[in-house]
Amino acid sequence: MNQPHRVEHDLLGDRKVPAEAYYGVHTLRAVENFPITGTPISIYPDLIRALAQIKLAAAKANEQLGLLEAPLAQAIVAACQEVIAGKLHEQFVVDVIQGGAGTSTNMNANEVIANRALEIMGHAKGEYQHLHPNQHVNMSQSTNDVYPSALKLATYVGIFRLVDALAYLRRTFERKAEEFKDVLKMGRTQLQDAVPMTLGQEFSTYAVMLGEDEERLKEAALLIREINLGATAIGTGINAHPDYAPLVCRLLAETSGVPVITAPNLVEATQDCGSFVQLSGVLKRVAVKLSKTCNDLRLLSSGPRAGFGEINLPPRQAGSSIMPGKVNPVIPEVVNQIAFEVIGNDQTVTFAAEAGQLQLNAFEPIIAHSLFKSVNHLRQGCLTLADRCVDGITANRDALRARVENSIGIVTALNPYIGYAAATSVAAEALESGKGVAEIVLARGLMSRAELDDVLRPEVLTQPRALPHRQG
Amino acid sequence: MNQPHRVEHDLLGDRKVPAEAYYGVHTLRAVENFPITGTPISIYPDLIRALAQIKLAAAKANEQLGLLEAPLAQAIVAACQEVIAGKLHEQFVVDVIQGGAGTSTNMNANEVIANRALEIMGHAKGEYQHLHPNQHVNMSQSTNDVYPSALKLATYVGIFRLVDALAYLRRTFERKAEEFKDVLKMGRTQLQDAVPMTLGQEFSTYAVMLGEDEERLKEAALLIREINLGATAIGTGINAHPDYAPLVCRLLAETSGVPVITAPNLVEATQDCGSFVQLSGVLKRVAVKLSKTCNDLRLLSSGPRAGFGEINLPPRQAGSSIMPGKVNPVIPEVVNQIAFEVIGNDQTVTFAAEAGQLQLNAFEPIIAHSLFKSVNHLRQGCLTLADRCVDGITANRDALRARVENSIGIVTALNPYIGYAAATSVAAEALESGKGVAEIVLARGLMSRAELDDVLRPEVLTQPRALPHRQG
Amino acid sequence: MNQPHRVEHDLLGDRKVPAEAYYGVHTLRAVENFPITGTPISIYPDLIRALAQIKLAAAKANEQLGLLEAPLAQAIVAACQEVIAGKLHEQFVVDVIQGGAGTSTNMNANEVIANRALEIMGHAKGEYQHLHPNQHVNMSQSTNDVYPSALKLATYVGIFRLVDALAYLRRTFERKAEEFKDVLKMGRTQLQDAVPMTLGQEFSTYAVMLGEDEERLKEAALLIREINLGATAIGTGINAHPDYAPLVCRLLAETSGVPVITAPNLVEATQDCGSFVQLSGVLKRVAVKLSKTCNDLRLLSSGPRAGFGEINLPPRQAGSSIMPGKVNPVIPEVVNQIAFEVIGNDQTVTFAAEAGQLQLNAFEPIIAHSLFKSVNHLRQGCLTLADRCVDGITANRDALRARVENSIGIVTALNPYIGYAAATSVAAEALESGKGVAEIVLARGLMSRAELDDVLRPEVLTQPRALPHRQG
Amino acid sequence: MNQPHRVEHDLLGDRKVPAEAYYGVHTLRAVENFPITGTPISIYPDLIRALAQIKLAAAKANEQLGLLEAPLAQAIVAACQEVIAGKLHEQFVVDVIQGGAGTSTNMNANEVIANRALEIMGHAKGEYQHLHPNQHVNMSQSTNDVYPSALKLATYVGIFRLVDALAYLRRTFERKAEEFKDVLKMGRTQLQDAVPMTLGQEFSTYAVMLGEDEERLKEAALLIREINLGATAIGTGINAHPDYAPLVCRLLAETSGVPVITAPNLVEATQDCGSFVQLSGVLKRVAVKLSKTCNDLRLLSSGPRAGFGEINLPPRQAGSSIMPGKVNPVIPEVVNQIAFEVIGNDQTVTFAAEAGQLQLNAFEPIIAHSLFKSVNHLRQGCLTLADRCVDGITANRDALRARVENSIGIVTALNPYIGYAAATSVAAEALESGKGVAEIVLARGLMSRAELDDVLRPEVLTQPRALPHRQG
Repeated sequence: MNQPHRVEHDLLGDRKVPAEAYYGVHTLRAVENFPITGTPISIYPDLIRALAQIKLAAAKANEQLGLLEAPLAQAIVAACQEVIAGKLHEQFVVDVIQGGAGTSTNMNANEVIANRALEIMGHAKGEYQHLHPNQHVNMSQSTNDVYPSALKLATYVGIFRLVDALAYLRRTFERKAEEFKDVLKMGRTQLQDAVPMTLGQEFSTYAVMLGEDEERLKEAALLIREINLGATAIGTGINAHPDYAPLVCRLLAETSGVPVITAPNLVEATQDCGSFVQLSGVLKRVAVKLSKTCNDLRLLSSGPRAGFGEINLPPRQAGSSIMPGKVNPVIPEVVNQIAFEVIGNDQTVTFAAEAGQLQLNAFEPIIAHSLFKSVNHLRQGCLTLADRCVDGITANRDALRARVENSIGIVTALNPYIGYAAATSVAAEALESGKGVAEIVLARGLMSRAELDDVLRPEVLTQPRALPHRQG
Repeated sequence: MNQPHRVEHDLLGDRKVPAEAYYGVHTLRAVENFPITGTPISIYPDLIRALAQIKLAAAKANEQLGLLEAPLAQAIVAACQEVIAGKLHEQFVVDVIQGGAGTSTNMNANEVIANRALEIMGHAKGEYQHLHPNQHVNMSQSTNDVYPSALKLATYVGIFRLVDALAYLRRTFERKAEEFKDVLKMGRTQLQDAVPMTLGQEFSTYAVMLGEDEERLKEAALLIREINLGATAIGTGINAHPDYAPLVCRLLAETSGVPVITAPNLVEATQDCGSFVQLSGVLKRVAVKLSKTCNDLRLLSSGPRAGFGEINLPPRQAGSSIMPGKVNPVIPEVVNQIAFEVIGNDQTVTFAAEAGQLQLNAFEPIIAHSLFKSVNHLRQGCLTLADRCVDGITANRDALRARVENSIGIVTALNPYIGYAAATSVAAEALESGKGVAEIVLARGLMSRAELDDVLRPEVLTQPRALPHRQG
Repeated sequence: MNQPHRVEHDLLGDRKVPAEAYYGVHTLRAVENFPITGTPISIYPDLIRALAQIKLAAAKANEQLGLLEAPLAQAIVAACQEVIAGKLHEQFVVDVIQGGAGTSTNMNANEVIANRALEIMGHAKGEYQHLHPNQHVNMSQSTNDVYPSALKLATYVGIFRLVDALAYLRRTFERKAEEFKDVLKMGRTQLQDAVPMTLGQEFSTYAVMLGEDEERLKEAALLIREINLGATAIGTGINAHPDYAPLVCRLLAETSGVPVITAPNLVEATQDCGSFVQLSGVLKRVAVKLSKTCNDLRLLSSGPRAGFGEINLPPRQAGSSIMPGKVNPVIPEVVNQIAFEVIGNDQTVTFAAEAGQLQLNAFEPIIAHSLFKSVNHLRQGCLTLADRCVDGITANRDALRARVENSIGIVTALNPYIGYAAATSVAAEALESGKGVAEIVLARGLMSRAELDDVLRPEVLTQPRALPHRQG
Repeated sequence: MNQPHRVEHDLLGDRKVPAEAYYGVHTLRAVENFPITGTPISIYPDLIRALAQIKLAAAKANEQLGLLEAPLAQAIVAACQEVIAGKLHEQFVVDVIQGGAGTSTNMNANEVIANRALEIMGHAKGEYQHLHPNQHVNMSQSTNDVYPSALKLATYVGIFRLVDALAYLRRTFERKAEEFKDVLKMGRTQLQDAVPMTLGQEFSTYAVMLGEDEERLKEAALLIREINLGATAIGTGINAHPDYAPLVCRLLAETSGVPVITAPNLVEATQDCGSFVQLSGVLKRVAVKLSKTCNDLRLLSSGPRAGFGEINLPPRQAGSSIMPGKVNPVIPEVVNQIAFEVIGNDQTVTFAAEAGQLQLNAFEPIIAHSLFKSVNHLRQGCLTLADRCVDGITANRDALRARVENSIGIVTALNPYIGYAAATSVAAEALESGKGVAEIVLARGLMSRAELDDVLRPEVLTQPRALPHRQG
């Protein structure tokens, strides 16, 4: 290496570090040790910001407790603020999949912040005798409290960004539900024609589902904001000042705007991945329901002629090079696939969480990678589904109405008027002959056209009503 | 069939039913259609009771709304009370894995209750002209609201039974934590010696984890108590009286003691499996943490000589036919396996939930089967773990204490007293020579025996403390 | 306990055993230790038979090697033969989910066989001084070689029973494919109308898939037949005669009819669960494809009027209490649920396999339970699907043909005759106007009726053909 | 957009495309439609090469069948060769997660190759009247046969690259097994001391496992090489020349060096994802066993003083900022996490495969993304584990030997010499008193030192041997 460099030292010996690098020897070792995905942690800016917010809060706490001299604390704070502002992210180069329980990520942060702080103080990078990555930037900390706390901070922010996207999609469905509120159609159970409903009712269920998911995510966020700063190595708080944990937590809440709280039992909190598993389970729930919704959209828009053909998704791209004019439900399809990925990620999180041993879970990096992917991709999926699909859906109103009138299922609604026996007989004739129920009822003189029209009104067919006396 | 029988009729034609059977033709068809596991739904008594509680509440509601004559209602109520009291459970014979979205389970309940009610009224079984399984027992209902509501009722009861078992196990761990509160030992991160802690701290984390799981299960129970009675076929409430839904809900809460509430949107509630997925995710979380705890217990008791050998699990059975005196951690092992089963069940629930289409999820029977297994087996696992393992654990106190004194990890605690550089040098000599840290520190005259003893007190090593001035 | 009993002894002390029980104290301890599912291992007769076949082969091998006296060997063999013939299965009472790596199952077998052999020799049960469960029945064995070998033997038998059921279902699909070979219909990609095919082609794909699954299962069986008898405790074969492993393997192959072979490395074979994971993966593959097939059958039969309505599944039971005449696809639905269960079981197997440590996997009991369930339920599902659904499927031939003629998709077939540009224009007019493609082509004079009829023949539409020159 | 551009047209209308872009309007639409991960398909060079190999083979086949004029074919072939050589990869910009069943990936390839071919022919990009992405580059093809065939080709190459890495790791373990072949140590079952073995035996099992995995992967590769080129839209081969399928397959095998074969039933092959599920199951198997191996390495190297301490992993980076001298098993930890990711990916593949409907599986893009990640990360994990961990492992020989002599487990080996009763008594005294078995045996005069030394030789303890007569 003839490039400009400086020499750093660790337990393995001396190592040249590129002169312009803000990271140091520990980061370099990690880059060499984990050549797994080629994707650096900088693809998760929320994580980088969270690390810097923690280092900032710790520096202030240490200063206030008299453990860190003011000039050092101020330089660290200034460096952290630059990172929070989005600078130096490209210096966070360790792989998203890494051994060491997050140590390399924490070391990467310590080194970048230390070297930037050194510059701010007027020193050269690597002159750690003035300000040391471990001694000062990491003071009162351990990877084992910094790393999970940073994950939680970053995840908290991501959850609420996802909640916003879910709400955006929910409102889109609500608008369509309003638009379709008087479109009568056949409801189905087990893919068989059942009884009538409105397309508005159908679309409103998707909105309601999303609303519930928003609530569940917020509940999961309440759990994830519980941090273990002050735990140091294993939660006993060895070498930490007794006042440090509450102080750094308060400072971190101020800095980040996230209402973090300190876990009541730090030994437990240091080894526990329960809140990650819980969150992953909720993300899986969101995925399952989004996938079901997309399955429905694809089914309802199947056709154009040999399918359900009830709704039309807006065309977004040509569907086939060989079949002229074919348009496919590509947006729901991509959301289905995001859902499948999220379900797989949940499996990864489950395995990683179960593999924790004794006082620490060494596998939080893959938990983090999995959760970040799930949160980010679900968000993109919701926004895409709202803007590029749901918003442009149209209904084939006449065909839907005709299908209700032509259905055998409406006989259920006539049950109370013509009796169960007559209804069964009408249904049988309809199935046998291919005729419509209404036609048969009129032909048999069981009801008048006016009576039938009254029963077939959407507001009658699609909600409870007090029935005439014949039933029972 | 020369056995005594009666003849019943359905859409497929006539069918002989054994004379003594309370179930009828629909149940028989289902038994023939689903010869899958050989396990009848009667293995889930909570489900049978829930079905009867719903049928009872519905009969009362229908009577109060003037839809069902009092003598019929009273006979149905009386029959349901017998089922709730545990009678006739053996008449619930359909397979736990069944097609039809639960219709066969609902039909089984309708038929058993109808035939018992007929007897109570003085009629023979099968004389449905007096009281009909569908017309009267199922009045104002559909499988699509009865079945998921019964699942939720049964699951709610099961959750709280599981919560009790978790609390029982938690209290057992709490007692052991108290017993071991002054047992000093080495904590470990990434399976490497870290810093000291007490065995009491270690055991208390298991208790804290369980306590959190109890809270999460109670939250999941709040979601699961939301039912859709009154939805009828697809949630529009077709053919149901407008007052029926709130009335039956109130009556069901009274009958069952479960604080059920009616879902705000019945169309959504009828197709939605979100609360099942959520619950399954929480059960998976419980499983993951129980499994981690059992992994720890097995690891800490590994040996007796070539392992960690920190604690002793009470022997429960001979471990080997070939190796004299070998005793194995069989109780944690069985709990691990329950956990693996629960994690697999969650996968099944996820798949089944995602497969719902349009207005119904046809796959709730396998969801129910999976959840019931998870809840029941976890409960048995907790009770077994508490009574047959944790309660009898003993600690190898002297060996643990010696290992702390002999550890290199305690050098971390000396850091603030002798300085980082000296600490590192001591650690290096210890690793190289095999000597103890204390021995080296004393030999070098860095601290006195009294100072050392002071620092090695559990209350000093295992919690935060304001440190002397040398650090930083 | 005033019941008649005998007293047995183990490392925990004395224990009364019911006088009539063939099992002994080790089994009793296990029953008390594992009150998990309430389901005894006797629900898996293949496993019980496999255990007896191994004990029989071991007794013969020990006799031939001069390690076991002839009268003892003969009594053990006679007792094993009774178990193989189906007697005494109810004496195998330990829970399907158990700790101890299968020790309790092995002990249960040793005790039942020993006590029955004692009776055959003219002694009373429990008089182990004459013939001992461990010393003699278990001679040259360890749970760690007996148990996995028994699982493999039982699984092997189960696989081929499943292969038979798959073949039965395959042949049923083949018959229907032949029956439907001239039924023209629209093929679909991404649920959108694509190009024509025959219903016979569609059904033959299900047959082909099943045929491939049969091959994959047979390949998995080849791996699973590799056993580790002779490994004893950890695979080193300690205390086993050097000739024992090959001899017992040969005798076991003779007794069981399964072509077992001895693993080349017994240490590896004793700890390895790879063949179980592999098999579970193949079972998951079978499940995934069966589920996809059932999804298709439910979709193709959706309706009767507001769905695809292409085929009719035979009605098997009434579908609804509230909707007269509704019939549901209950048989495909139950098979879907079996598939979901199998996928969940695979997850359980994966977790259990990963959790093995050092020289043994302690979690084989849950692996066995999961695999047995998957194999058995899949088999029942295939037979049920064949007999109660596929065999009775009918096609709506006229509607299918009309839908092809009415489709826009057939324009793809006209491409080579009228050119891509004209085809696109025809497609556009068809979509806009609702008219048929043929109608428009005829009206525009692009092709004659005779030419069109020629192109619309199934044999032209549904296979490759050399095309006219206009393409390119 | 004031940038230089050209205008292209699709069914949604006109669209400006950057002048320098080789991709066209279809690719642009896809980029806008799928803003999911931000990761383009170019991160999978094997896939890009496979697409170009297929387009090249198709162009040649079309030329040979007289369907494509020679100058066009030659230009396409030349453009494909550039892509195969690694040029233009950055033009493959569609997202790895995309709707449309791979259409966008296929379109991306068609457009890039067409525009490069146009340039080669002396035309400008976008002058599709001379050579058209769909008409010419995609001739005789459909996404539905090109895309899965490309996935299979790319996966095949990836599998063998992984097999090489597994073999490399296997050989590393084999070298260590040879190095440790005479290191006696205690074997363990269920984490409890069992009987002696050599560390060489222990390490050789890891090698054997890897060897088996190599075989399983090769078997999976045999299945994955079956392609469906010639199927066109749904497998019926509509618009394809009857000689095309065999011809293009032969040409593709020549071009790619992969021994591809044409599936016997193209309709089945077009919709089937069985070989992907099978492969994913095998990758999961590989992951499970690698993870188990890494768990063992972490356990065996636990310590340095309060753990198993049997082997030493080479230090790769500092383990802690707070604990001086701590080194962690970071390389096994990263491999564990890769395994967890692979297991999650398998879940994603399973879900996506099950979601296929009728004649196509629209979710192959996420299957591809999951499989590529699994194959690539496993490969990196194996190489890293070999070079950065296993190769540098050392054994604590003396401690291991001492632990065997000090063990109670060796009593099993004395069983045949001193009898089961005496062995049990010795074991009991050892456990009670803390003394060694050898010491007690010598003190009791049961064996001489010479006899004992003879029995404790590794070659005696660690393999079968014909035993003295006392047994049985």
